[in-house]
Amino acid sequence: MTEATSAELAAMARAIELAARGLGTTSPNPVVGCVILNAAGEVVGEGFHAYAGGPHAEIVALAQAGERAKGGTAVVTLEPCNHTGRTGPCAQALINAGVIRVVLAVSDPNPAATGGADTLRAAGVQVITGVREAEATKGNIAWLSAVRRGRPYLIWKFASTIDGRSAAADGTSMWITSEASRMDVHALRGTVDAIIVGVGTVLADDSRLTARNLRDGSLAIRQPMRVVVDSDGRTPLGAKVRDGAAPTWIATAAEVGVDATGKVDLVVLMTELYARGVRSALLEGGPTLAGAFLSAGLVDKIVGYIAPKLLGAGPAALLGAGVKTITDAIELDVTDVDKVGPDLRITAVPKREN
Amino acid sequence: MTEATSAELAAMARAIELAARGLGTTSPNPVVGCVILNAAGEVVGEGFHAYAGGPHAEIVALAQAGERAKGGTAVVTLEPCNHTGRTGPCAQALINAGVIRVVLAVSDPNPAATGGADTLRAAGVQVITGVREAEATKGNIAWLSAVRRGRPYLIWKFASTIDGRSAAADGTSMWITSEASRMDVHALRGTVDAIIVGVGTVLADDSRLTARNLRDGSLAIRQPMRVVVDSDGRTPLGAKVRDGAAPTWIATAAEVGVDATGKVDLVVLMTELYARGVRSALLEGGPTLAGAFLSAGLVDKIVGYIAPKLLGAGPAALLGAGVKTITDAIELDVTDVDKVGPDLRITAVPKREN
Ligand SMILES: NC(=O)c1ccc[n+]([C@@H]2O[C@H](COP(=O)([O-])OP(=O)(O)OC[C@H]3O[C@@H](n4cnc5c(N)ncnc54)[C@H](OP(=O)(O)O)[C@@H]3O)[C@@H](O)[C@H]2O)c1
Ligand SMILES: NC(=O)c1ccc[n+]([C@@H]2O[C@H](COP(=O)([O-])OP(=O)(O)OC[C@H]3O[C@@H](n4cnc5c(N)ncnc54)[C@H](OP(=O)(O)O)[C@@H]3O)[C@@H](O)[C@H]2O)c1
Repeated sequence: MTEATSAELAAMARAIELAARGLGTTSPNPVVGCVILNAAGEVVGEGFHAYAGGPHAEIVALAQAGERAKGGTAVVTLEPCNHTGRTGPCAQALINAGVIRVVLAVSDPNPAATGGADTLRAAGVQVITGVREAEATKGNIAWLSAVRRGRPYLIWKFASTIDGRSAAADGTSMWITSEASRMDVHALRGTVDAIIVGVGTVLADDSRLTARNLRDGSLAIRQPMRVVVDSDGRTPLGAKVRDGAAPTWIATAAEVGVDATGKVDLVVLMTELYARGVRSALLEGGPTLAGAFLSAGLVDKIVGYIAPKLLGAGPAALLGAGVKTITDAIELDVTDVDKVGPDLRITAVPKREN
Repeated sequence: MTEATSAELAAMARAIELAARGLGTTSPNPVVGCVILNAAGEVVGEGFHAYAGGPHAEIVALAQAGERAKGGTAVVTLEPCNHTGRTGPCAQALINAGVIRVVLAVSDPNPAATGGADTLRAAGVQVITGVREAEATKGNIAWLSAVRRGRPYLIWKFASTIDGRSAAADGTSMWITSEASRMDVHALRGTVDAIIVGVGTVLADDSRLTARNLRDGSLAIRQPMRVVVDSDGRTPLGAKVRDGAAPTWIATAAEVGVDATGKVDLVVLMTELYARGVRSALLEGGPTLAGAFLSAGLVDKIVGYIAPKLLGAGPAALLGAGVKTITDAIELDVTDVDKVGPDLRITAVPKREN
C-alpha cells in the first residue's frame, strides 16, 4: 500500500495539531507531532516535541503505545531523525518498537538529521512520504525556511494609522494602536527566538523589548534574544535593552562586518543569528532598519497593525526600501486581515520571496 | 393598532429594498420605497422613486394597486410629501386612494416637505411612524445628513500602499491600486452628485474626473458635477476637467469667499454646493485639500483603497489635518473591510461627527 489510508490521513491531521502545541518553545528544533496506530489502525499513542532538549515526538508517542506499537504504523509530521542528538535517533527507536510502516508529511531539510527514512527502509519498514505535506509545511514554515536557507525566518512588524503614520508630528506615538494590539505583539514576541531593532529605535524609545503580560508586567518564561543593530556601538550603557531580563546582543559593525554603505552587514548578521540558534526573528523597526532588511530581500512575513486614526503628519513606518518608482514597488500577497480590538492586523508575504 | 403588524414589518423591509434601487439617480431627492397592502394585508402595489422629476414611490405603488388600495395600508420608508412639487403631494394621493392606514419609517427632515403625516391624520388616516427606522435611515444616510445639516454628505476617498504612500519617490502613482479598485471608484462616482478635488491635483494629474466604464471608456449616463477648489483660478483653460463631459465648477476664492488662511472657505463652499442641489459628494484629494476638509470636520465617511505594496518613500494620502500630537489623532470607526481585487477597501466614519 503506497497511499495513506483514511485512518492515516486522520492521524496526520491530528499529528499536525499536536505539533503546533510546541510552537515557540522548540527552537532551534522544529515542531513535530506523532501518532502511533496499532496493527488494526487504532490510535494507541500520541506525542509532540514540547521544548528543545526534551524528548522528540516519536519517543513520547512510542512510550504511550508500549507493546501496542508492534506491527503498527507511526504517523509523523517530519522525517524522523537519524542522528544521535540530545535524545538519540528516532528512526532506530521506531525500528526497535516493531513499527512496520511509517507515514511522513515533510522530509527533514536539515543535513545533520536527514536519512531517517533510509534507515527505516533498510530495516524493512515501509515508508511513505508527502502525506498532508502542505499543511505540515505551513505549521513548520519558520523552521523549514530557516534550515533550508541557513538564516532566520524574519517577520517585520509595524504599527501605523490608516494614513500611514507611525508617530504624530511632535514624535509622540504612545499609543497609536490599542492595548489589544500591543498584547498581540507580546504574544508574537513569545513565538520567536529573537527581536531585532535598529539603534535609532533604542535611542528614541528605550523599550525593554521583552515578552510580557501587559496587565501585570510579568515576564514570559521564555524570552527571545534582543538584538540591537548598532554599527558604532551607540546603545547607551543604561539602555533598558541591557537590563538583563533577556539575553541581549549589540550587533556592531566591528563584530559582524560592514556592507557597502558602511553599516552592519545584514546578510552576515542573519547567518550569525542562525549560528546562534535563532530560527525565527521579529523585526520591530525602526523605519530605517526595516527599509534595509526589505531591500535586502530578508523579510519573509509582514504584520501591520493599522489603527483607525488619521494624523496627517508624522513619520512613516518604512523608509528607504530602495524603491524609486511605482513599478518597482515591493509587491505583497495579503494572507490575512483580522480585527484586533479596534485595529486591523494585516498579514502579508512578499511576492518575490519564497 | 399602534404597533406595526408582521405583514407591515415585512412590507417595510421590502420597501427599504425597493428604495435602494434609486440610489445615485434621485438626487436632490431622497430614495423612497413604498408597498401597498390591501384590507386583508396582502401586497397589491410596489413602487420606488427612480429619478428626480419622476413619480414618487407612493404614486407608482398606488397606480399598481388601483382600486385594491381602498381600505388598505401604505407602507413607506419616508414621510409622504405634503407640498405640490414636481409630482403633486403624495399625502393627498394616499387619501384620495382610500388608504386608511400609513406606516412610516422616517419622518421627513426637509422643512418644505414635512407635514404629510399631519395632513393624513387630519383626513382620518391612522399613521404610525418609526417602523424599521434605523434600517431606513441607513439606506438614506447621505440625503438625510445633507438635509438635516444643509451641506452635502462628504465621502473622502484615497488610495495608498500598506506603508501609507500615495505615490512613489519620483511622483509616479499609476497605478498604485488594481483595476478592480479603480472600477470600484468609478462605481462610487456614479452614486454621488459631485466630485471635489484641489487645484494641486488638477495641476499634477489632469484627470477627467468622470464616471466611466474603464473597459471601453464609455461615460455613465449621469455625471456628477466636477468641483475644483482653486482659490486663485489656476485651473488651466485646457485642463481635462473643463472638457464638457460633465458639469464643472471652478470654485474660486473670489466667488466663494476666503477662510482665515486666505483660501476658499470650505464651509461656504459646502453650503453653496447644497444650494446647487448637491446632496452627496466624493472628495478625491489631494492630501492638502483632504487635510483641510478633515480638520474642518466636514468629512462624513472615509473610503481607503490599500494596495498590497510597499514603497518606503513618496507622499502620504493626507497632509495637514491639524493634528500635532498622538492624543489629538482623528479617531475613526471602521465599518467595513473588503477585498477589492488584491487591494483592501477600508470604510470608516469619524468618531467625532454627528
Ligand atoms: N510604529 C512602529 O511600528 C515603530 C517601530 C519601531 C520604531 N519606531 C520609531 O522609529 C524611530 C526610529 O527609527 P529610525 O529609522 O530612526 O532608526 P532604526 O531603524 O531603529 O535604526 C536605524 C539605524 O540602525 C543602524 N543600522 C545598522 N546597520 C544598518 C543597516 N545595514 N541598515 C540600516 N540601518 C542600520 C543605523 O545606525 P548606525 O549607523 O549607528 O548603526 C541606522 O541609523 C523612533 O522614533 C521609533 O519610535 C516606530
Ligand atoms: N492617492 C490618492 O488618493 C490621491 C488622490 C488625489 C491626488 N493625489 C496626489 O496629490 C497631489 C496633489 O495634492 P496637493 O496636496 O498638492 O493638492 P490638492 O490637495 O489637490 O490641492 C491643494 C490646493 O487646493 C487649494 N485650496 C483651495 N482652498 C483650499 C482650502 N480651504 N484648504 C486647502 N487647500 C485649498 C490650494 O491651492 P490654492 O491656494 O491655489 O487654491 C491648495 O494648494 C498630486 O500629486 C496627486 O497625484 C493622490
